[in-house]
Amino acid sequence: MTSDRLRKQIDFIVEIDRLKQVIRQTYLMDSSRQENSAEHSWHFAVMAMLLAEHTDEPVDVFKAVKMALIHDVVEVDVGDIFVYDQERMAEKEAREKEAAKRLFGLLPPDQAEEYRALWEEFEARETPEARYAAAIDRLQPVLHNYYTHGKAWNAHGVKAESVLKVNRRIGNSSTELWGFAKEIIEESIRKGYLKQ
Amino acid sequence: MTSDRLRKQIDFIVEIDRLKQVIRQTYLMDSSRQENSAEHSWHFAVMAMLLAEHTDEPVDVFKAVKMALIHDVVEVDVGDIFVYDQERMAEKEAREKEAAKRLFGLLPPDQAEEYRALWEEFEARETPEARYAAAIDRLQPVLHNYYTHGKAWNAHGVKAESVLKVNRRIGNSSTELWGFAKEIIEESIRKGYLKQ
Repeated sequence: MTSDRLRKQIDFIVEIDRLKQVIRQTYLMDSSRQENSAEHSWHFAVMAMLLAEHTDEPVDVFKAVKMALIHDVVEVDVGDIFVYDQERMAEKEAREKEAAKRLFGLLPPDQAEEYRALWEEFEARETPEARYAAAIDRLQPVLHNYYTHGKAWNAHGVKAESVLKVNRRIGNSSTELWGFAKEIIEESIRKGYLKQ
Repeated sequence: MTSDRLRKQIDFIVEIDRLKQVIRQTYLMDSSRQENSAEHSWHFAVMAMLLAEHTDEPVDVFKAVKMALIHDVVEVDVGDIFVYDQERMAEKEAREKEAAKRLFGLLPPDQAEEYRALWEEFEARETPEARYAAAIDRLQPVLHNYYTHGKAWNAHGVKAESVLKVNRRIGNSSTELWGFAKEIIEESIRKGYLKQ
């Protein structure tokens, strides 16, 4: 007989399958279609696993990878909100908190507590792991925009000034990664992928 | 200036974006479309993170999660091979080894070595982490088949006997997870999702 504990874990695992249907603004690197939040979370987790050596402060890499894996789970209830959409970003926080309560609440109590706390830590950006995870979560779409010649930026009329402002927080975790992101952004401006 | 080391890591990260376009036989749980190997890898990694308490032997959970994240990367070159397709499964090994050499070889030498070794460890199924990761990699499609009323099984005329044979290896890592998988498979037979 399946234990109540395993049943709860499976309920969560089944529920988050819907993240595969949450569509982001970012395009795949060959521009063929927009990516979804599940495959973005995978790419983000791989990047977090590979790039941790570049942080300015030591990080617990597994903790950052866990954050990557669950950071978007709330979108199952709330959907994806484009980082340059300031109006919707304002209401984002309250709705996501509700979603976190419901979704992580499907897990057994100890795991519900653990993963909701981890998600809140990620959102607060106050620990080295949260700053690092946030940096990677920003860097990934910059890369995608560069390789798609600014497809998502241009679809939404996003200008260089906003891109520099939104992504500056990469530097709160890693001088090297922010240096790299700036190079890409500047090259995007030079090549006409991103408007001044 | 971006270091040569970071440049190599980014080259790998860009290359594996193509995993989002490798289509598996398994359907999303609402049956709307087949899933791709990137979103499957995310789901697998989340499951590996949450279910490690059920293994019969202790496992290094981060190691299993890393395996989940990179286990399908070779499909960027080789494509996905259906686990019930015995003819193609035979040639799978040699082609995937080549792909692993090329793809992990994009990384800086120490990481290339580390992740190629990790992928080979996963493939060999000889360590507790590899057995656990392999169990989750099997359990995930069983769940998807159950929730889609056997959609991928029936599309390929897969019978109960094969499903039991292929998935028995879940029991090499976890008696409890294999017990759960068997319950689901038996219920699938009872409900007519899976033919005897």
